[in-house]
Parts: sequence; C-alpha cells; structure tokens
Amino acid sequence: MQKMLAEFVGTLILALAVVGSGSMAQLLTQDVGLQLVINAAATAGVLWLIINLFAPISGAHFNPVVSALARYRRELTSAQLLQFIVAQIVGAISGTLLANALFHREFFQISEFARTGWNLHLSEIIATAGLIFLIFHLIEIGKEEKIPVAVAAWIFSAYFFTSSTSFANPAITIGRIHTESFSGIAPASALAFIPFQIIGAILGYALYKIINQKVDKK
Amino acid sequence: MQKMLAEFVGTLILALAVVGSGSMAQLLTQDVGLQLVINAAATAGVLWLIINLFAPISGAHFNPVVSALARYRRELTSAQLLQFIVAQIVGAISGTLLANALFHREFFQISEFARTGWNLHLSEIIATAGLIFLIFHLIEIGKEEKIPVAVAAWIFSAYFFTSSTSFANPAITIGRIHTESFSGIAPASALAFIPFQIIGAILGYALYKIINQKVDKK
Amino acid sequence: MQKMLAEFVGTLILALAVVGSGSMAQLLTQDVGLQLVINAAATAGVLWLIINLFAPISGAHFNPVVSALARYRRELTSAQLLQFIVAQIVGAISGTLLANALFHREFFQISEFARTGWNLHLSEIIATAGLIFLIFHLIEIGKEEKIPVAVAAWIFSAYFFTSSTSFANPAITIGRIHTESFSGIAPASALAFIPFQIIGAILGYALYKIINQKVDKK
Amino acid sequence: MQKMLAEFVGTLILALAVVGSGSMAQLLTQDVGLQLVINAAATAGVLWLIINLFAPISGAHFNPVVSALARYRRELTSAQLLQFIVAQIVGAISGTLLANALFHREFFQISEFARTGWNLHLSEIIATAGLIFLIFHLIEIGKEEKIPVAVAAWIFSAYFFTSSTSFANPAITIGRIHTESFSGIAPASALAFIPFQIIGAILGYALYKIINQKVDKK
Repeated sequence: MQKMLAEFVGTLILALAVVGSGSMAQLLTQDVGLQLVINAAATAGVLWLIINLFAPISGAHFNPVVSALARYRRELTSAQLLQFIVAQIVGAISGTLLANALFHREFFQISEFARTGWNLHLSEIIATAGLIFLIFHLIEIGKEEKIPVAVAAWIFSAYFFTSSTSFANPAITIGRIHTESFSGIAPASALAFIPFQIIGAILGYALYKIINQKVDKK
Repeated sequence: MQKMLAEFVGTLILALAVVGSGSMAQLLTQDVGLQLVINAAATAGVLWLIINLFAPISGAHFNPVVSALARYRRELTSAQLLQFIVAQIVGAISGTLLANALFHREFFQISEFARTGWNLHLSEIIATAGLIFLIFHLIEIGKEEKIPVAVAAWIFSAYFFTSSTSFANPAITIGRIHTESFSGIAPASALAFIPFQIIGAILGYALYKIINQKVDKK
Repeated sequence: MQKMLAEFVGTLILALAVVGSGSMAQLLTQDVGLQLVINAAATAGVLWLIINLFAPISGAHFNPVVSALARYRRELTSAQLLQFIVAQIVGAISGTLLANALFHREFFQISEFARTGWNLHLSEIIATAGLIFLIFHLIEIGKEEKIPVAVAAWIFSAYFFTSSTSFANPAITIGRIHTESFSGIAPASALAFIPFQIIGAILGYALYKIINQKVDKK
Repeated sequence: MQKMLAEFVGTLILALAVVGSGSMAQLLTQDVGLQLVINAAATAGVLWLIINLFAPISGAHFNPVVSALARYRRELTSAQLLQFIVAQIVGAISGTLLANALFHREFFQISEFARTGWNLHLSEIIATAGLIFLIFHLIEIGKEEKIPVAVAAWIFSAYFFTSSTSFANPAITIGRIHTESFSGIAPASALAFIPFQIIGAILGYALYKIINQKVDKK
C-alpha cells in the first residue's frame, strides 16, 4: 500500500511538473525555445527529487516499463506490477488534472495535439532505450546513487535532441492526453507512442545485457 | 543569539536574492519567461547555499512553518520558536529593503501586486506541502545531506509548475510586501497566502507521517 | 569488443545530442543566443552521463586525442588505439546521421558552414588544452570522480567563451560535417580544426606535466 | 613557482570565461537578460572547475582579497602574498586580452563603460562579503569540499541580485578594464570598486568570526 502511495504521489508530482510548467511557460513567453527550456528544467528538477525521495520506499519507478522490467528481474510480483502500473497511471492523470486546475483551465480536457510521424516514434524508442539502459547499467556498475541525476540529465537533454521531446513513459503519456496545453498529446498519438516506448525499453535492456555480459567474459 | 543571527542573515540573503534578481530581471529583458528563469535560478542557487552554510548553526529553517514543525517535534522551545520567527520576518523585510536600495528604488515600498484566486491558494498548499514533506522525509530516510539540493530543486521547479510561483514561506511572503517590483505581493494577498501555506505544511507533514509509518509496519 | 561498443555508443549519443539539440533549437527559436544555450546544456548533460556510464567499461574517451594520450601513457595498445578511434569516428558519424533522421532532414548531408579564421583555430587549441589538462590533472590529484562534471562544466562554458564553440574533439568534428544544421561544419573547415585540436592536446598535457612535476619537487 | 603558475592559469581562465562569454553573448542575442544568463552560467561553470583543479596546488584563491585574508591567517608569507597578487592580476589581464583575441577584437583595449553609484558600491560590499564569509565559514564547519559549488552558486546568483553584477575580485576588476565588450569597466570605475571589495572582505570575515565565535561559547 505504501509503495503504491509512493508511486502514485511521485508520478502525480512528475505529471504536475511537466504539464504545469508547460502551461506556465505558455503564459509567460512567446518564445517556444524558452518554453521548452522551462518545461525541461522543471521536469528535470522534479525527476531528481522524486527519485531521491521515493527510491527507499517503492524503488521510484513512476514508469510502467521500468516496473515491467523489475517484474522480469523478479524484483516485483505480478500483483505488485499491476498495482504499480495502476498507481502510476492514476497518478499521471491526477497530476495532469491538478495542473489544469492550478492554471485555471477546464479541469477535464482531451488534447487535440497530434504528434505523429516515424521520426517521433524513433525518438521514443531512443529516449526510452537510453532511460532503461542507464538505470540498469548504473545499478550493475555499482553507481546506483547516480541514478537520480542521470535520469534528470538524460531526460533534460533528450527533450532537445529527440523530435518527440522524449515522453519515454507510458503512464505520463496517458496523463498528458488530458491537457490542451502545449504539453498535451492527442489520444490516438498517445496510443501510438506506447508500443515504441516498449520497444525502446526492450532494446535498452538488451544493450545493458550486451555491454555487461562482455565485461563478465573478459 | 547566534542561531537567531544565522536565521536573520540567511532569510535576509534569501529575500535579497528573490527580490533583487526580480528587479534585475525586469531591467534586463522584456521576456517575462526569461525574467522568471533568472528569478528562479538565482533563488535556487542561494537556497542551496544558505542551507549548507547555516544548517550546523540554526538548522537553516528561514521559514516559520519549518520552525513551527521543529517546535512540534520538540527540537525547539517555544521561546526559541518565537525568536526564530522574529529573526526570519525581520530578515525577510531587511533583505527586501536592501534589494530596493541596491536597485536604486525607493527604500520603503508597499506592493500593489494583487495575487488572488483559489488556484493560487491551492498552489501555495501544494508548494508548501512538498517543501515540508521533502525536508522531514529526507531526514527520516537518512538522506539529510540531500536537503539543500532538494529544497533548491523543488522551489526552482515549483516556480514554474504552480500558478503562484511558490512563495511557500510566510516570512518571505511578508518581506515581499515591501517591493513594487514584479516579485512583490500586495498586503491583502500576502495575508491571504499565509493560512494556505500553514495548511500545506500540515498536509505535507501528514503525508510524511503516512508514508513513513507504513514503512515501519512492513 | 565491448570497449569498442562502449566508445561507439557513447560517441554516437554525444553526436546525437550535439546535432539533434542544434536542429531542435533552430526549429524552436529565432534567438541564436538561446539556440546555443539549448545546444550547450543538452551537450553538457549528455557528456556527464556518458562518462559516468562508460568509464568502467572503456575509460569513456569518446575523443581520439584522449585515446592517443592514453596510448602515450601505455594505458592502451596501438591496436586498441586504432579500434577506439574507428569506433569514435563511426559513432560520431552515426549519431549525426541519426539526428538528421530524427528531425526529418535528409539522411546524408554535407555541411557548407565554413568555420575559418585564426581566432577559431586558437579557440580550438585552448578548448582542447583545457579538456586534456583537466582530465589528467584530476586523475593525478586523486579527484577522478569529478571528471564527468568537470568535462561537462568546461565544455558548457567553453561553448561561450571561445569563438569556435569548442569542438575540441576530432571524431565529433568529423561527425558534424554530415549535418546542414547550425551545428555543422564544412569538410575543409573540419580538416583545418583537427591539427589545432592536436596541438591543444599536447599543450594541455604539457601544462599538466609542468604543474604536477613541480608538486613532486617541492 | 608552481603555486604562482596555478594562480596565474586559474585567474586567466576565469577572466577569459567572463570576458569571452560576454563577447559571445553580445554577438548571439539582443536580449540583455539572456546575455547575462550566458555570462553568469559560463563564469559559474569555470569557477567550479578552477577551484577543483587548483585547490591542491595553490589553494585556488584567484582573488587578492582571499589571498590577503590567507596572509592574515598566516597561511601565506608576505612574499607569497605579493607573488599571488601579481600572478592574479597578470592572469586576469592576460585572460581578458586573450578573450579580445579570440573574438577578433583589438587586442589591447580600455573600457569606457562607467559603472558608478553608491548602489553599485554597496553591491560590491555585499558580493565580496558573502564570498569571503562562505569560504572561511565552510572551512570552519568542515564542509571545505563544498567550496567550489558554493562559490559558483553565490557568484551566479549575485550576478542577478546585485546591481553591479558582482565583480567581488580586485584582480578580475583590473582585468576587465581591458575590454570594450559589455563585461568591461572604465579604469576610474574599477579603481572605485576595489576599496568597497576590500571593505566587503573585512565585513564578511567579521561575520564569519561572529557566527563561529558564538558556536564555541555555546
């Protein structure tokens, strides 16, 4: 229960930070570059924070593909996996709705922001692969304590070097359906993103295995 | 006495950074987004610094709701609590007046910047709840040394993902009455903010208790 | 093999971050200052990350002049040096082409962005000298764990205080030939940069030797 | 000799970063707010770096008022103090001239940028007092390893919350006479800044003594 609460609260804060700072940025400036800098910096700050806060409680996943891989590594039971994913999705939607409320927008919204194209899908593969690789690789090389900064650095940078601005998280992707701000995503686009995030997660985990298997052989 | 001095100097520097960088930002650029980035970054830098500098002296509260909770946890006496709050409020006002002086504005000012609306008040609840939660939770999980970065990261991000720009501190709120710059707040708005900051502090402390009680039970 | 893979993947990510964030920045804003801030911040974030990730595998060179000095220090064999340089150059070109793909540009491009002038060449000498000095000096004084932040801080700052925006890396220089975005460099300019990067590396290594020899004598 | 070299090289890099990034910022953008963000961020990055690099060699002063206080604390002889100050001033001038060269400006320049007014002088007192206080206070409380980040955070923030943009260093102030870019300062203004920096240093040292004396008494 307390693990689910941690996953719920953490994912809620993450979605609030992503969507809220997006709304704020649009209110403050016309410069889309600066809007995305604000969005990425607020997101990175919160990511670092929630991983530090909740890692000792739930492992600080906040992301169904991370939880699924933890299940694959037998660090979670199937029941826990289900609970985690529910908590993450409910948290992401709640955080988005809360952001709508804070910025005096309509509470319940559905985005019409289409995000399509194979280059965006390839971006999601790369963003998610990198995220998964860095998490499990840092654990493997005994630098687990660098995960909070590493995740924040990866996501901050990937906001800019991918064309999708790096969602890299199915729960957050579902949450972001519910805002009409520039951080939103139309339902059809969101559904199309998720398979590529799953592919990215598998590729990232494979790369982690390949790079670390070879170390063992040496 | 030396604890009061630490609280006074720290809160003075914090108010100076908030109000001074706000004045500077307005002089430098017309882009309100960039103004707030400058304001938030200067604030975060100073927050990190003053917590590191004064934690061994006074605990580095700089915030009446933090001191009140320290009293509740019997880490302060009632007399000390009173002294801390006085030092914080006098420090915040002094820092604001000093910022006015440095930027050649009239020394004593009263802001007319109305900040009203339930969404701003909800923002103050969330911003203060998060601040309180992270401080006591990090102490509980033995990561006290991460508090300076964590507070800076939370406040930096919350500048953008809340609609109130996250005052989250009754002393600083009172201080910011005394500047006509864009970081100011009208007296009536300031008074209305404080109860919500107190509510947020209580909710944040409750969340900290809930999440950590459950860990004990496991 | 796994070392080559680490050098390949790391340099690929670095080139992707440099070129991808450059393309994104151009799409987002007309302000060239903000474009370069985005470019430098995304690059610094990824540099910190890839050095942390791959240092235990390959040493995290991602740069032929670093590998050449490792050979000079007998930390690599000549065969390994050759393998590393191949992996770095192939990685840099691959990362650039991938960035082109992600931003829906033509896959294979040749830049026409001439970067010439003795002041740019002097910039490359300084940028590379500083990079080499800091790496080997930090190892010497037992602060090896600061290398990731130090490299990121140096390159971020040098983006702005040199007139060449600090390529400081022959592999990345060759990679950046293959994009027409504002992070590109024409082939002739690229070829002219490399000798100055080599001179800078030698000077940086000499400075490291001078400053640390004198410590021994004392 | 090797200490002087460290002070010379470090101060040269610092002046190069301040003046070079100022010149670059002016070339890149019309937004003065963004210019100062670039200037402050590049300076903070380099400050963090040079303190880490040279602290084990020379103590990483790069600032005559820091060296003078080290002399007062008998950590330097008078002869060493003189050598340090010479190295710092020559380094600061050299770094400024090098920045002029890198940006293809005339090599030897004298700034006409008047920086006058009691509010700027008060700013220099505060900026230098804070710098001196944090350095000696962090040593006293056993957090010497935080000095590089702390100096960078203070100077970055003080760029924005003081009206002088925080020179806080007589050597750098003298160096910055020699550029006509927006980071320059006219000779008369520079000479007027230095006494206030010295006053600030004395006040900062006094505050450090007061706050820490009281700890002893407790």
